[in-house]
Amino acid sequence: MTILGKANRMHAPVDLADIAADVMARIRARAPRVHCITNTVAQNYTANMLLAAGAVPSMTIAPEEVLTFVASANALLVNLGTFDAERRSAIEVALGAVDAARMPWVLDPVFIDSSPGRAQCARELLAHAPSVVRLNPTEFAPLFGGDPAGEAAARVAQACSTVVALTGSVDIVTDGARHVAIANGDPLMGLVTAMGCAGSALLCAALAVETDAWLAAVAAIAALDVAGEVAARTARGPGSFASAIIDALHTLDGATLRARIKVS
Amino acid sequence: MTILGKANRMHAPVDLADIAADVMARIRARAPRVHCITNTVAQNYTANMLLAAGAVPSMTIAPEEVLTFVASANALLVNLGTFDAERRSAIEVALGAVDAARMPWVLDPVFIDSSPGRAQCARELLAHAPSVVRLNPTEFAPLFGGDPAGEAAARVAQACSTVVALTGSVDIVTDGARHVAIANGDPLMGLVTAMGCAGSALLCAALAVETDAWLAAVAAIAALDVAGEVAARTARGPGSFASAIIDALHTLDGATLRARIKVS
Amino acid sequence: MTILGKANRMHAPVDLADIAADVMARIRARAPRVHCITNTVAQNYTANMLLAAGAVPSMTIAPEEVLTFVASANALLVNLGTFDAERRSAIEVALGAVDAARMPWVLDPVFIDSSPGRAQCARELLAHAPSVVRLNPTEFAPLFGGDPAGEAAARVAQACSTVVALTGSVDIVTDGARHVAIANGDPLMGLVTAMGCAGSALLCAALAVETDAWLAAVAAIAALDVAGEVAARTARGPGSFASAIIDALHTLDGATLRARIKVS
Repeated sequence: MTILGKANRMHAPVDLADIAADVMARIRARAPRVHCITNTVAQNYTANMLLAAGAVPSMTIAPEEVLTFVASANALLVNLGTFDAERRSAIEVALGAVDAARMPWVLDPVFIDSSPGRAQCARELLAHAPSVVRLNPTEFAPLFGGDPAGEAAARVAQACSTVVALTGSVDIVTDGARHVAIANGDPLMGLVTAMGCAGSALLCAALAVETDAWLAAVAAIAALDVAGEVAARTARGPGSFASAIIDALHTLDGATLRARIKVS
Repeated sequence: MTILGKANRMHAPVDLADIAADVMARIRARAPRVHCITNTVAQNYTANMLLAAGAVPSMTIAPEEVLTFVASANALLVNLGTFDAERRSAIEVALGAVDAARMPWVLDPVFIDSSPGRAQCARELLAHAPSVVRLNPTEFAPLFGGDPAGEAAARVAQACSTVVALTGSVDIVTDGARHVAIANGDPLMGLVTAMGCAGSALLCAALAVETDAWLAAVAAIAALDVAGEVAARTARGPGSFASAIIDALHTLDGATLRARIKVS
Repeated sequence: MTILGKANRMHAPVDLADIAADVMARIRARAPRVHCITNTVAQNYTANMLLAAGAVPSMTIAPEEVLTFVASANALLVNLGTFDAERRSAIEVALGAVDAARMPWVLDPVFIDSSPGRAQCARELLAHAPSVVRLNPTEFAPLFGGDPAGEAAARVAQACSTVVALTGSVDIVTDGARHVAIANGDPLMGLVTAMGCAGSALLCAALAVETDAWLAAVAAIAALDVAGEVAARTARGPGSFASAIIDALHTLDGATLRARIKVS
C-alpha cells in the first residue's frame, strides 16, 4: 500500500487507500462536471457511473454546442469508440477549449487495434497532452509501439509527459517516475460493456478534484476495482453485476478500500 | 389530496390518487404509441419505462421516416438533449404532423441553461403549443425568463396556453388556473441518468389517454414519484434503483398511490 | 424434443436441448466476434447479451471503418431500427465484406411495418442471402407478403434459401425443409426494449460456431427463451428481469435446457 518508484528512485510511503477514499469524497463534495465525447454504446452507463460517484455528466457532441459544454466543465473524456465524422469534429473543438483552459482530459483509445484510422487519430491527439491515457494491452502497440509492459508504459509516459493507465487483470499506472500495479477488480468487469469507458469517465472526475494526475488515476482505478469486488459478492451474473458495481461505487468508503486494496 | 386553485379561485376537491391510478390503468389497457425524439443517452431507459407502463415506444429520428412514425403515434416527446442537425430536422417534421393531427406533445428543454442554441430552439417550439412543458428549475429562466417559482410558472402557463411541470424535490404542475405541488419522489431519482427524460415520455403516454393535459401531467408525475418511493425501499444504490423503479411502475396500483401521494 | 419435418418429410430425432447446450458451450469456448449494425436504443443491451454469452461485440457504423471491423468479425447483424443514411451506407459496405468472406449474417427487419422505406430496403437485402431472417409477425407481410404462419414461413425460407425465425409467443424456425415451434419464453421478454434485437445478435454468435444455420437459430432462440423462464422466477418486474435474463444466459447449462425446452 505504498507508492513504489522505479528501481533507482525512492518515494515516501503514502497510503493509497486513504488517497483513493479522499479523492472519492472530494468528488461527492464538489460534484465536478465531466463532459464526455464517447460512443453511443457507452453513454448511458457512463452517465450513471458518474452520477453514482457524485459527478455531473454531459454528453453532447453537436459541433455547434460542444464548445459551450466543455468550457463550463471541469474535465473532458475523449473516447474513440464509434468513430465518426461528427465525433472527430467535436473532439477537435473540445480540445481547443481544453488547451485554452488547461483543463484535465483523458484519452481512451477504444479499439484502435481494429482500426488504422482511429490509431492515427489517437497518435495525433497525444500532441494535446492528455492528463491520462487509459487503454487495454491490445491498444498499447498501435498507439505507442512496443509491448504493453510496465517498463514500456513508464518510458512512453515520460516521453509524452502523461500518465499511462494500462488496465487488465492487473492495472498499471505510471507517470514515468511513479509506478504502481493494482491487483484488484473482478473478471465480471470484463463482461459488462462500457465498463472501461465508464471507468475512464470516473478518472476524469478524479482529475477534476486532484491535480496530481497520477494520484487521481490510481484513486479512480482502485475505487472502481474495489467496487467491482464488492459487487461480485452479491451479483448472480454480469447483468446484476452491472447494477451492483454502480451501487457499490456510490457507497464506497475508506474502510472498504483499506481492507481490499492490493497495490505493489 | 385535493386540487388547489390559485388564491382567488376554488375548485371542487378531486382525488388525485384515484385519477393517477385510473390514468395508469388506461395506459395499460390502451397501449398508446409514443414517438420519442430524444437523446441517445436516454433512448433505452425511456423505451423501457414506456414498456413497463404499458405504452409502446418508437424512437427513430431519420428525417425520411419520422413523419410516418409520428403520424401513427398517439403522442410525441421532443427532448432537446443531444441537440444536433438531424434531431432539429426531425423535430420540425414531427411538429408538422402533430399540428395537423392535434396530437398531444411534450417539450423537455434539457440543458438549455448550458446552450444558447437549445434555449433559442425551445423558445421557438413554444409556438407549436406543447401540451406540457416539463423542465428543471435551472431550465426555467432561459425558456420563460423569471424565477422558477409557482407564481411565475402559473403566469407563463397561462400566457403560453400550456401546462408547466416544474420538477424538483417538490414538483409543481400548473395550467395557470389549476396548481398542484407534489411532494413525492426519492433523491435517488436524481442519480439515474435520463430519469427526467423518461418521465417526460411517461407524461406523453398519459396525455394519449387523458385529454385534460393538467390531469395527465399530475397523474404521470405522481405515479413516477410514488414508484420511486417504492423502489427506494429495496434499492441498494442508484444502480439497483434504476431497475427497481421500472419494476414498481409496472405494478403500481391505486392502493399504493392513495397511501403515499402527498399533494398540496 | 425432436426435429419435425414438414408433413411429407421425415428427419431423425435429434435432441435439440443437447444441441442448444452444445452451441452455447462453443460460443463460450471460441468467443466469436459479432459485428452489429444496430440502432442506438439497442446497442448497449445487445453488447451486454453477447458478452454474457461469451461472444465479443463491436458496433461501429462509421463508413470509413465498418469494413475493417466486419472483415475481422465472425458474423454480422443487420438491424434496421433507427434507419438513417449513415446506417444504410454502413450496411452496404458491410454486406460487401460478408459476401466476399461468405460470413454468416442475420437480417432483423425492425419496424418495417411502420416504414415503407425500411420495408423496401429489407426486401433488397434478401438478395444478399441472409443466413437467418428473424422477425415478428407484424413484420412478415411487408417483407414476404402473406400471413405470418408456419406454412408461409417455410415457403419463403425455401424460396429465399434462408432460415426464417418468426418469433412471438411461440417461435417458428424453418429452412423450408426442417420446421420447429419453440414454446418457451416469458411475457416479460416483450416488456424489455431491444430483447428481440439482442436475440438476433445472439443468433449471430450461434451462426459463428455452427454452420447449420437452422440448428444455430433453434439453439440461440431456445437458449434465450429458457434463460427468460429462469429469469422470470426471480424478477420483480421488467426492470429486474432485463438484468436477470443476462445473468441466466451467462450460466445456462444443458440440464436446465433439457428440463425446460418445449419444441414440436
